[in-house]
Amino acid sequence: MADVMPAARQTSITPVDGGITAPTGFKSAALHCGIKAKPGALDLAVIATDTFASMAGIFTTNLAQAAPVLVSKQHLEATHGVGCAIVVNSGCANACTGAEGLANAKRMTEQVADALGCPPEHVLVASTGVIGVGLPMERVIPGIQQACSALARGSGGEAARAIMTTDPFPKEHSVRVTTSRGSFVVGAMAKGSGMIEPNMATMLGFITTDAQVPPAMLHRALVESARDTFNAITVDGECSTNDSLFAMASGSSGTAIDEELYPALLDGLLSVSEPLALGIVRGGEGATKVMAVSVYDARTIDDARQVARTIANSPLVKTAVHGADPNWGRIVAAAGRSGVTFDMQKVTVRVGGILLFENGLPHDESSPKAAEILKRDTVDIEVSLGGGAACATIWGCDLSAEYVRINGEYRT
Amino acid sequence: MADVMPAARQTSITPVDGGITAPTGFKSAALHCGIKAKPGALDLAVIATDTFASMAGIFTTNLAQAAPVLVSKQHLEATHGVGCAIVVNSGCANACTGAEGLANAKRMTEQVADALGCPPEHVLVASTGVIGVGLPMERVIPGIQQACSALARGSGGEAARAIMTTDPFPKEHSVRVTTSRGSFVVGAMAKGSGMIEPNMATMLGFITTDAQVPPAMLHRALVESARDTFNAITVDGECSTNDSLFAMASGSSGTAIDEELYPALLDGLLSVSEPLALGIVRGGEGATKVMAVSVYDARTIDDARQVARTIANSPLVKTAVHGADPNWGRIVAAAGRSGVTFDMQKVTVRVGGILLFENGLPHDESSPKAAEILKRDTVDIEVSLGGGAACATIWGCDLSAEYVRINGEYRT
Repeated sequence: MADVMPAARQTSITPVDGGITAPTGFKSAALHCGIKAKPGALDLAVIATDTFASMAGIFTTNLAQAAPVLVSKQHLEATHGVGCAIVVNSGCANACTGAEGLANAKRMTEQVADALGCPPEHVLVASTGVIGVGLPMERVIPGIQQACSALARGSGGEAARAIMTTDPFPKEHSVRVTTSRGSFVVGAMAKGSGMIEPNMATMLGFITTDAQVPPAMLHRALVESARDTFNAITVDGECSTNDSLFAMASGSSGTAIDEELYPALLDGLLSVSEPLALGIVRGGEGATKVMAVSVYDARTIDDARQVARTIANSPLVKTAVHGADPNWGRIVAAAGRSGVTFDMQKVTVRVGGILLFENGLPHDESSPKAAEILKRDTVDIEVSLGGGAACATIWGCDLSAEYVRINGEYRT
Repeated sequence: MADVMPAARQTSITPVDGGITAPTGFKSAALHCGIKAKPGALDLAVIATDTFASMAGIFTTNLAQAAPVLVSKQHLEATHGVGCAIVVNSGCANACTGAEGLANAKRMTEQVADALGCPPEHVLVASTGVIGVGLPMERVIPGIQQACSALARGSGGEAARAIMTTDPFPKEHSVRVTTSRGSFVVGAMAKGSGMIEPNMATMLGFITTDAQVPPAMLHRALVESARDTFNAITVDGECSTNDSLFAMASGSSGTAIDEELYPALLDGLLSVSEPLALGIVRGGEGATKVMAVSVYDARTIDDARQVARTIANSPLVKTAVHGADPNWGRIVAAAGRSGVTFDMQKVTVRVGGILLFENGLPHDESSPKAAEILKRDTVDIEVSLGGGAACATIWGCDLSAEYVRINGEYRT
C-alpha cells in the first residue's frame, strides 16, 4: 500500500505504550463487581470519550446473537455511529437469556448514560463469558456506577485484564501514525478464547484513536482492517454468539482523516489489530503453535481464503502440526475438499519454506528437514494453486489433547 | 416407505450370515501380498462375479482423487455399468502418485482381467492406506494372480478383513429381502477410519446382490441409499482422496427389479448400509461414543442436513459429548453458524430426549438428567428449527485426546 499511495508513502508507524487509553480523548476504569466468583478478579470495564466520538462496530454472524450484540447494533444504527462510551463485562455472555437478558443489556447502557449525562443510545455494550446464564444485575449496576466515577487516563491496561475470561495473557497494543499532515495514535485491546472455562462467547476487540474520522469512514476502515486480521484467524472454526469488534475515534489529535489520509488510518488499525489477532490464536484453547496458512495463485481472494480456512480448520492438519509431522497429504486433501475448483496437478505445498509436493508428486526426501522446522512455535504452510494471482493468509493453531481436556470437562 | 408402496408392503427383510459373498453369483479371495509390513496381514482382495454383472460406483468429491478412483470411474463409464470384478488393496492409497500411480491402478485391473478372461474395462479397482506412496507392484501382481486362482464362495469375511487399514473391527452385513415376486440377498462390507496409522485414505464400501438390476437402476439405488447412510456420517469432517462405494448385481437369484420392486431393492441396500455406516463411526479414530444428530422442522432436507452436519462436526460439541456435558449452548451456537437461516426463538434442543433449550431460554434444571444419559455410548441430539417439515440425521462421534494422539504422532 505504501508503494502506491502518495500520502501513505510519507506515513511512519511507531509503537507506543498502552492500549485503549493511549490515544488522547479516552478514559477507562475497570473493577471487580462480582460477576466472576474469584475475589478481586476484574470483570467490568467502562471506556468513555471526553466528547462525542465516531463509533463503529462489527459483530458475530451467528444467528444466535447475544443480547449485548443486539443492543449495540441498535444503538449504532440509532445514532448513525456517534457515541461516548462502551461498557463491557466478562464472566457472563448474557447470551441465550431471552427478554430479561435484552432488558439487562439495555440497563447497562442506561446506567452508564445516567452517570455520564448522555442518551443511552450513545452507549454500547459487550459481554463475554458463560452462555445461558443471567447477569447478576444487583452487582453489575453498583459496579457501573463505581466505574463511571473512577474513569481515568492511563488505566487501559486494567480494562484489557477486565475483559479476559480465561485468556492466558492480556492483549493490548498501540501505535503512533505520523503522516505529512499530522499524527494520531491508535490503541487497542482484545480478548480471545481462554482456557478451562468452557462455553465462552469468545472474541471481543476494542480500537481507539484520536484521529478525527467520520463514522462511515471509521466503519469502512474497521471492516477492511478486520478482514485480514480478526476475521483471518481461527482457533476451532467456531463462531461465537458474542464476537464484537468496536472502533472509537475521539478526534482530539486534530488530525482529520480524509480519502488522502485513509491509507494511514487503515495502516494504523492494521498495526494494532494484527498483533492482537495473533495473540488470540497463540492464546487459543490448548494451542501450542501458531500456523500461518497462505494460499497463493488463486483465481480470487475468496477462493484463496476458503482454501486457507479449510486447511487451518482441518483436524488432521491441526493434529499433524501439533505432532510436528510435515504431512503434505492432509494439506492436499483438505484443499481438495474445500469446495474451490483448481488443477491439482499445478498445486505446490511448502511447509516451513520446504517444498513437499509439486506436479502431483511428493518430495519425501525433504520431510525430515520440514519436520525439524515444524517443532518451532510458529509454522508457515504455503499452498500455491497455480491458477491465478490472488492470495490470502489465515492464522490458526494446532489441535492438542489439552483442547479436548479443556472442552470435554463437565461444567462445574 | 412400506406404508405407501404396495410391493414394498409385502417385503420382509431378515438378516443372513456373511458379507459380500452371501448373495449367489459372487466369489472372493483375500491374502497377504506384502503391501502391509506386518507378516500375514491381509492386504489384497478380489471380488468376482460368475457372469457379467451390473456395476455402480460413487466416489469422493475431493479434487485430489486417487488413481484407483480415476480408473474405476473411467471403466464404469466405458462399460456403462457392466463388469465382472473389483480388486482392492489396503496399506497403500495409491493417491498423489502421479502418472506412475495411474499406470499401476490400470495394471491391477489388467492383471485381474487376464486371469478371469475379460476386458480390463470390466474390472474396477480400489485402494486404501497411506497417501503419496507408490504400490509395490512386484508384490501386488503375483498377489493378484494368486487371489484370482483362489476365488471361492463364502470367503467374504476374509475380504472384509483385507480392506481394513487399522479399523478396530471388520464390518460386514447381509440380509435376505423377500417380496411377493421372489426374494434376493444383499451383502456388503466396508472399512472406515482406523487407528494408529495416520494419513489413511478412508472409506471403502462394497455391496453385492443377486437381484437382477439394470445398471442405471443400481446406480440410482446406490446414490439414494448412500444419502442417508454412508453420506450421512462424519468422523472428523475430512473427505478423503479414495472414498469409494461400489454395488454389483449378479442377477443369479432370478428376481428382476423393476419400478414396482425398486423400493424393496432400496430397502435391502439401506438395511446393509446403515449398520456398516454406523460401524465406521463407532470405529472412528479415537471415538468412544456415537452421536446421532437429528434436525427436525427445517424448511428443506438440505437445510436440515447442513445444520446437523455443522453440529456433528463442531469440535466444541464433540468434546462436550466426550465429556458427557449436556452443553446445549454449543449446539445452539453451532446451529447458528451453519449458514442456514431460521428463527432462533423457535428452536428447541433435546439431548438424550431431555429438553434443554426452548423459546430462547435454557432448562438447566434438566442438565443433570441429560448428563447421565450422555454417559451412554450412543447419544441422540435432537434440534427442532421450528420452521418447516423437513428432517435429516447425521451420525458422528465424539472428539477424544486419543484422536489427537493417533493423528499427531509422527509417521514412522
